[in-house]
Amino acid sequence: MTTNASATSSTAAAGTEGEDLLRDLYADWCQIMETTPDLTMRLFRSIFDEWHQPTVEPEGVLYREDTVGGVPGIWCLPQGADESQVLLYTHGGGFAVGSAASHRKLAAHVAKALGTVSFVLDYRRAPEFQHPAQVEDGVAAFDALVDSGIKPQDITTIGDSAGGNLAIAIALSLKEQGKQGPGHVIAFSPWLDMENKGRTLVTNNDTDALITPELLEGMIAGVLGSTVDPTTPLANPLYADFTGFPKLYITAGSVESLLDNATRLEERAAAAGVDVTLSIGEGQQHVYPFLAGRSALVDEEFAKLAAWHRA
Amino acid sequence: MTTNASATSSTAAAGTEGEDLLRDLYADWCQIMETTPDLTMRLFRSIFDEWHQPTVEPEGVLYREDTVGGVPGIWCLPQGADESQVLLYTHGGGFAVGSAASHRKLAAHVAKALGTVSFVLDYRRAPEFQHPAQVEDGVAAFDALVDSGIKPQDITTIGDSAGGNLAIAIALSLKEQGKQGPGHVIAFSPWLDMENKGRTLVTNNDTDALITPELLEGMIAGVLGSTVDPTTPLANPLYADFTGFPKLYITAGSVESLLDNATRLEERAAAAGVDVTLSIGEGQQHVYPFLAGRSALVDEEFAKLAAWHRA
Repeated sequence: MTTNASATSSTAAAGTEGEDLLRDLYADWCQIMETTPDLTMRLFRSIFDEWHQPTVEPEGVLYREDTVGGVPGIWCLPQGADESQVLLYTHGGGFAVGSAASHRKLAAHVAKALGTVSFVLDYRRAPEFQHPAQVEDGVAAFDALVDSGIKPQDITTIGDSAGGNLAIAIALSLKEQGKQGPGHVIAFSPWLDMENKGRTLVTNNDTDALITPELLEGMIAGVLGSTVDPTTPLANPLYADFTGFPKLYITAGSVESLLDNATRLEERAAAAGVDVTLSIGEGQQHVYPFLAGRSALVDEEFAKLAAWHRA
Repeated sequence: MTTNASATSSTAAAGTEGEDLLRDLYADWCQIMETTPDLTMRLFRSIFDEWHQPTVEPEGVLYREDTVGGVPGIWCLPQGADESQVLLYTHGGGFAVGSAASHRKLAAHVAKALGTVSFVLDYRRAPEFQHPAQVEDGVAAFDALVDSGIKPQDITTIGDSAGGNLAIAIALSLKEQGKQGPGHVIAFSPWLDMENKGRTLVTNNDTDALITPELLEGMIAGVLGSTVDPTTPLANPLYADFTGFPKLYITAGSVESLLDNATRLEERAAAAGVDVTLSIGEGQQHVYPFLAGRSALVDEEFAKLAAWHRA
């Protein structure tokens, strides 16, 4: 990775005992996918809604269902949080699976660590809705938050995996539209490379418990269909112009297949002069913040994230 | 049903627009079960963990994971609740599926309506653990609550479907052991009849969107194995001696196949002099309180339940 003047990188300490829960869940899903040849999208969604299981229920957080800009979702409201600071959270799951419910606890942990509230979007999923429906939903929610009186710079777009892509694409889309974008962008293990050509797909293939090129291929077909170019910047931010992009924080696990989505993003953003931070969890799997409440490493990571957000 | 002097019955008004969500979820599960001949217990558990979906996130409730009497679970803590009053909630799912996670929102809604806190147990499930493991876990949690200073009469055992069976069996087991039992028992659509011979299995077969005799047969085999007699009172409370049993509140849906589990329970309890209330939701499906936050009928039911609990 680069050590550009505006980029800081770190490698966190190795994981704690709780890490196995996420790896075990991924291994279990892979076993189901391998042994159920005709696994339907319906059942695919069912198993990925278990993504919340490794995450401990955060204490001191209230919830409220709402619709923001026409997009349903769940507010996570930590007691004592600054409600003028909003994390707009787009969940992962290849644009096709995952939900506000599967990511409620994770989004609540992050909000609690940062002293903010978060809103987890149930954006329209693929393949029923293809790109750019997901980005449009995110922008609609962002615009509605601003209309409700939240300052753009007090909004953080944040997400994991495909939702990390969306957190970036929402900011890029707002810039394209000449609107003021979020003050911060956070991406946990972002999935950006719609050409599916990352080097770590090969080099980390044996250590990543979930992601395979074949799985990604199916997700790409679902969200892009046959009409969207996989180098479209709003679908694949590795091709975006990051000039003037907000402060960006990226995490990834060192053993995951999507690692070089994070490192390529850092390089590209740093080259454009973005204030970008990349933090790699040594030995960690895809979206290891799902171990929130259970892993000292995630506690440390969220403390770093909070300091970065305050700065 | 009986109109015993100590029994009160009522039939609530027909459902509201939200009711379709529960019926649709059940129909969807049945479609999966019919079209996936080798549906594993693993996937069976995955789809039943979606049971939370029809329930709206209750507002003003905090959560905390804990272990009580060695049994893991989730505390639901409505703001302003009387923490000396505890609902010990045993989830439904044929003793085999369902979880604290699938029932968190429902248990939180009930606690909020009653002004209490609730603890939803992740008891040991069948077929890995057979009867009486589930009852033992419930009793262990009850004993631990009492040891922690909660008065037995301030505990309500409560559950739905197989968990309604457990809410009753826990109280019966405590009585058998000569211990002071809960002050109240609540059973939503209890499933009691381990002989699988209820009349409404036939008469409501066309209107119940989920339950079939075959589904129950598999669940019975899982929890009783080949050794437990299906007329064992702690497994099948329709054979229990209800003398001295606590105040009992039962709900059921008029169109569900397990309706006459509720009516037979009411008859048997009333005959033993128990203060029993049966409330039937007209046109409602199995465990229709899952529509909490979405159905005016459930709001009304919970208001009745709260008045009963206070009295």
